[in-house]
Amino acid sequence: MHKNFKNIDKVVFGRGSFAMLDEIIAPIRKENNKYFVFVVDNYFKGKDFVSRIPLKPEDVILFEDVDTHEPTTEQIDNLRDKILSEKGLPSGVIGIGGGSIMDIAKAVSLMLTNEGSSTLYQGLNLIKKPGVYHLGIPTISGTGAECSSTAVLTGPIKKLGLKCEWTVFNQVILDPELIASVSDEWWFNTGMDTYIHCIESENGTLNNTFSHAYAEQALSLCRDVFLNERSGRSAENDDKLMVASLMGGLSLSYSEVGVCHALSYGLSKILDYRHCYANCVAFQHLDDIYTKGVKEFKQMIEKHKIQLPKNLSEDWSDETITKMAEVAYKLPHMCHQAFGENWKNTVNLEYIKALYKRL
Amino acid sequence: MHKNFKNIDKVVFGRGSFAMLDEIIAPIRKENNKYFVFVVDNYFKGKDFVSRIPLKPEDVILFEDVDTHEPTTEQIDNLRDKILSEKGLPSGVIGIGGGSIMDIAKAVSLMLTNEGSSTLYQGLNLIKKPGVYHLGIPTISGTGAECSSTAVLTGPIKKLGLKCEWTVFNQVILDPELIASVSDEWWFNTGMDTYIHCIESENGTLNNTFSHAYAEQALSLCRDVFLNERSGRSAENDDKLMVASLMGGLSLSYSEVGVCHALSYGLSKILDYRHCYANCVAFQHLDDIYTKGVKEFKQMIEKHKIQLPKNLSEDWSDETITKMAEVAYKLPHMCHQAFGENWKNTVNLEYIKALYKRL
Repeated sequence: MHKNFKNIDKVVFGRGSFAMLDEIIAPIRKENNKYFVFVVDNYFKGKDFVSRIPLKPEDVILFEDVDTHEPTTEQIDNLRDKILSEKGLPSGVIGIGGGSIMDIAKAVSLMLTNEGSSTLYQGLNLIKKPGVYHLGIPTISGTGAECSSTAVLTGPIKKLGLKCEWTVFNQVILDPELIASVSDEWWFNTGMDTYIHCIESENGTLNNTFSHAYAEQALSLCRDVFLNERSGRSAENDDKLMVASLMGGLSLSYSEVGVCHALSYGLSKILDYRHCYANCVAFQHLDDIYTKGVKEFKQMIEKHKIQLPKNLSEDWSDETITKMAEVAYKLPHMCHQAFGENWKNTVNLEYIKALYKRL
Repeated sequence: MHKNFKNIDKVVFGRGSFAMLDEIIAPIRKENNKYFVFVVDNYFKGKDFVSRIPLKPEDVILFEDVDTHEPTTEQIDNLRDKILSEKGLPSGVIGIGGGSIMDIAKAVSLMLTNEGSSTLYQGLNLIKKPGVYHLGIPTISGTGAECSSTAVLTGPIKKLGLKCEWTVFNQVILDPELIASVSDEWWFNTGMDTYIHCIESENGTLNNTFSHAYAEQALSLCRDVFLNERSGRSAENDDKLMVASLMGGLSLSYSEVGVCHALSYGLSKILDYRHCYANCVAFQHLDDIYTKGVKEFKQMIEKHKIQLPKNLSEDWSDETITKMAEVAYKLPHMCHQAFGENWKNTVNLEYIKALYKRL
């Protein structure tokens, strides 16, 4: 009837709150084999930041490369097998990084207690048992993965999330100091993920008062960060971007993403485009569907001198475009959100292929 | 360092979502003695609404009168003793009503598993064990009690909450249809509780980006409900008020209430004023402290033709005023929020007495 959505159990927000990590996980260290797995963005390998991670001798730290592709089912299965075979079930999994690392931490936590390949569980409520304790620490803000009930994975057949209430983090630490070091490009692209999914949330049939209140405030914060007079990189705007990401994610508790995300999933699945970048590449061409949003997005592009590629489809074969369109068409919840219950009257494979040909 | 705040575990928002109650609690009915306690505002006794409550033969329904006074420690202790002696530990407690009923349900849930009088636990983190499962269904919106970690109780010595992470509801059902029947007077006073605590949250030293984002959006929703062109009683505004109450409450996860709430606690403790009404009575006189907020509040008062009493203090003895001031002075967190760390330079008993004399 209405979604009964699961919140993150506990949230800390504040500059320097990363220092609270050790204290926060101390009571959990008695579970299972009493060690923690830290899944950390490979970007931090060898950087000073690693010395601030409160590792105990029994803990495991895994640096994951998320630059070249989105998290895959194979990657999750391998991580799970490695962890279980080497040290058994851990007390918990801690993800430190951007949206991909958040998704990896959530997925590994679930797959540690659910047998077989993660491909078996891509979809809604297919997971059978709660995972181990999992904690997320975003170092890039915008995807909303810190609060979502989905761990998006690319499998051999589909790009689709492990989605259930157990996916949601037990704890999130939101320390805006951690996002200060992100490159301008990723700061922009990832921030735009929030902006774009709020626009999709607001312009869809599933939007309600709850979603709207969250999306409206997240959009207002995005404007402060990327468009208004005091926009740009600053401590104040890092605070705002972190809250925008959370609120944008919470807006999707009731509403849904739409056409842009559907196209984006095809770009990621078939051409290995990173999610946030793929959104930006697609969104610029959707001004007939999201008129005001795309207009404002282009102002932000211009303000921050972002170069997005155009005429990409000239180099794509019809086969590639068809494959991407097939990925997008297999996401009916996004089409439903954008075009209503009778979305099949508007959307078919040719319609989606035509959208890809705009790119 | 920073608050690590506990969220409501699960939230449903939507018109008609009350009908999901039976399904939601079904999995919990295996706990303890397999029955539920429903604590319901006495206002509903004999009304058709009661037939919609999914009672099983083993369940207990308790109608509580919250018109004449705020919830007391004695009331909670008596309820707890009655429940335990008659049927033993229940599967859970469900509160259906306004802020007072929310507080009663939260407090009873905790006191069912914590020995001795609830007066022992008035304060921060004094509760020793988690309570039983508890679920809140607001039928009046504005206090934010549906998401707060406090169950405010008036005891023989103090008006102070049982405050800890276990106080927070396991589940909240936010069905805007349920608040349609509230009297205009309570609709206004209770809605103003959100407005006033957001103004206090915004104008205090503890306000941060997280609090601000929530308070700003809650205030915007309050303006839609009580001030703007489409303000007044409507289904659309019931939806908005319900979200405003939630977001106003979440704003206080980091920030705090201030001078108005301190005065209000004195009025409730000594003169049995209801909380939301007491806030309104006090707030109108605080234009030097909350200038813009009080100005806008007076516009809302005028728009909805609300009559608030004035010159009350003419009938109060110095003893009464002193007693109220002593209650307010024992709430240092509110004074800290309003005037900063060195609040004692500004605030003493005489200062607070002078504020009461304005009323």
